[in-house]
Amino acid sequence: MASFDTRNRTAPIRTAEILCVGTELLLGDIVNTNAAFLSKGLASLGIAVYHQAVVGDSSERLRVALADAFEGHGRPAADLVILSGGLGPTYDDLTKETVAAYFGRAMELHEESLARIRDFFTRTGRVMTPNNEKQAMMPEGCVVFPNDYGTAPALAIGDGTRTAILLPGPPAELIPLFNEQAVPFLRRFTEGILISRNIHIMGLGESTVEAMLHDLMVSSENPTVAPYCKSGEVRLRITARAADESSARELCDGLVSQILQDPRLAPYIYGVDCDNIETALVRLLTDRGMTLATAESCTGGMLGQRLTAIPGASAVYTGGFITYTNEQKIVLLGVDPSTISAHTEVSAEAAAEMAQGARTRLGTDIGLSTTGYAGPGGGTDVNPVGTVYIGIATKDNVVTHRLYFPNKSRDYVREAAASRVLREAVHAVL
Amino acid sequence: MASFDTRNRTAPIRTAEILCVGTELLLGDIVNTNAAFLSKGLASLGIAVYHQAVVGDSSERLRVALADAFEGHGRPAADLVILSGGLGPTYDDLTKETVAAYFGRAMELHEESLARIRDFFTRTGRVMTPNNEKQAMMPEGCVVFPNDYGTAPALAIGDGTRTAILLPGPPAELIPLFNEQAVPFLRRFTEGILISRNIHIMGLGESTVEAMLHDLMVSSENPTVAPYCKSGEVRLRITARAADESSARELCDGLVSQILQDPRLAPYIYGVDCDNIETALVRLLTDRGMTLATAESCTGGMLGQRLTAIPGASAVYTGGFITYTNEQKIVLLGVDPSTISAHTEVSAEAAAEMAQGARTRLGTDIGLSTTGYAGPGGGTDVNPVGTVYIGIATKDNVVTHRLYFPNKSRDYVREAAASRVLREAVHAVL
Repeated sequence: MASFDTRNRTAPIRTAEILCVGTELLLGDIVNTNAAFLSKGLASLGIAVYHQAVVGDSSERLRVALADAFEGHGRPAADLVILSGGLGPTYDDLTKETVAAYFGRAMELHEESLARIRDFFTRTGRVMTPNNEKQAMMPEGCVVFPNDYGTAPALAIGDGTRTAILLPGPPAELIPLFNEQAVPFLRRFTEGILISRNIHIMGLGESTVEAMLHDLMVSSENPTVAPYCKSGEVRLRITARAADESSARELCDGLVSQILQDPRLAPYIYGVDCDNIETALVRLLTDRGMTLATAESCTGGMLGQRLTAIPGASAVYTGGFITYTNEQKIVLLGVDPSTISAHTEVSAEAAAEMAQGARTRLGTDIGLSTTGYAGPGGGTDVNPVGTVYIGIATKDNVVTHRLYFPNKSRDYVREAAASRVLREAVHAVL
Repeated sequence: MASFDTRNRTAPIRTAEILCVGTELLLGDIVNTNAAFLSKGLASLGIAVYHQAVVGDSSERLRVALADAFEGHGRPAADLVILSGGLGPTYDDLTKETVAAYFGRAMELHEESLARIRDFFTRTGRVMTPNNEKQAMMPEGCVVFPNDYGTAPALAIGDGTRTAILLPGPPAELIPLFNEQAVPFLRRFTEGILISRNIHIMGLGESTVEAMLHDLMVSSENPTVAPYCKSGEVRLRITARAADESSARELCDGLVSQILQDPRLAPYIYGVDCDNIETALVRLLTDRGMTLATAESCTGGMLGQRLTAIPGASAVYTGGFITYTNEQKIVLLGVDPSTISAHTEVSAEAAAEMAQGARTRLGTDIGLSTTGYAGPGGGTDVNPVGTVYIGIATKDNVVTHRLYFPNKSRDYVREAAASRVLREAVHAVL
């Protein structure tokens, strides 16, 4: 293969666009998680992303989008374009060929990749169809990123000022290939870095937070501060740019401390840089050497699923019950049948006994419960669809809350109720 | 307000672009689920989406993207642009103002919206901050879509040939506003409709399916047929366009029947148009009047969460156990301690006893179990990280499978194992 021009790149990479290829994205068949992942990764390298685009499996539209990205056409031109998708074996996978043509390169067989693809099929015990050989054809002069997670190799291609990185579409391949190969590759061309910290707030709306911090937000340039909503909470993102990590971190930390001390916000802050409320809870319980059990009705396993999504959760989360019927609330959790007949299973009383039952039956420090009407069916005049009771039991007492999310979807009600009980658990431990 | 020009639109709407606004999308802080939702909704109206784009909270970049969409600039011009985000109360919410300027319209106060916003704050018991009044300012001559799900009203604006629809960014508002107001509005301008059907295949790779159906895929024009990967399965999407629904449906049905009878594919097809494997299972069990219980270790509640995400799941899913420790597998599920000491808790034997335990303890027809090493920690030489044993117990017997997902993330292993045990449950019932 000819020597790779991108190696001769001397211009730094400051800006990037993300270009995802796939008719399935335009049909809405899949959600574009790659764009978010790549944006986040580029931000942490200090590369600013001003534009993301999705085009279908059409060579002509892809060419136009690529030219728009590299040449600007009314917006600032990007130093880097990351493309995802369209590297597969099927006849409508056209990304490699289109980008090669844009840079005026021919396609040639890459023997090493072909051997790797053959080996992948052998290892996974599948039969290699002839169309898979197409995946070993590479533009001349590119840098190949071998793919240990699938069959389509990734690659970088470009010239002195324009670099394109092509990654396969499936996130299970794209994520490790980006982290392991694209990031080290890009580090050679970046200058300075961005550091972000996130303050997590639950219980205040975005507009309230923004009104409280308006002056600070407008006056802050480095670091910047911006609020955004995510899964039932508001996050304040503080971002600083500096020549090296420690300087950027120092800039961030000053502003973070200042905000943490704001007495209007403090009661609603549950953590800093803790990804989400379940991570905050698992960390806190790990630090305290405490354990947790769950009893779920309307959330149906979501509490357990969210807690166990965190590596290391087994140190604090011993398990739980999914009790979708009244009989099971009685048998598995020891809820008193008379509680249900007096108050129904969607009540503060039932939530309290469920939380206490999970705690005592599994011998943990804390028990959490959810019971409610997530919709679309169910609900009563007193407790319409969207009502959820949550319980937090500790050795000494049990606290319940009635939550109400009117006009929300089943998913929203379940997510929001799960988030809230996790937050109350954090409060109970603190 | 001036009369709305879009009402005078006579040109049909055939093509659309989706333009999502928000720096949080470009930073990767949130995943763009709106683009997928809107694309799917437009496809079912017969409106083709050839491009999706994301821009930050910058008026100038938004203006360029809007002009690109409506004026083409190298790609076909769109009849419709749907924008999401940037309608909020904060100073960086600029979408309405930018689109109004593009169409040469002034902003004016919309009294009805202001009253609605005030009422929303009263109903939800929150305090209205002054910046929320900005949300009642509307471009002259627009059609307002009142928002019952939040504070920012949606709207349509345009002229004889260009229509823009502006929706708020939060999915809990965007989804119902699109379905309830944008869809009926758009129906006046669409011609013909698209109908899609999906055949769900599990156990074959995308390239294998494509190799089997290559000739059919290339030769089919209406309906078209295309494979895509989604959460551990391959779907074949058959899409037909016709003047009315029944004609389109008839076109689809012919090709669907033909594919269902293909003996190479048939053993791997678990359903048609069933959203996902859990929906297929809930439907099947409902039809048969059968019930289900779960015993989860490595999936930690995900099976329950996925099953209970489906409205009506309570008719078949009675509940389950999340047994994250060996002690709980023994106490809650009745796993024999000697099974664990002889084979460990990650074994076919343990999976079998767990599935049987869930079934008998909850008195259901079927019991499902998962136990494995999702990673990143754990694993043994015999059963490295990525190994999961699943169990499917019925009245007469219990079947187990060993699954192995090398080099995959914790999330992937859990999702894939959950999907597979649900598929095996479908097979066990059929």
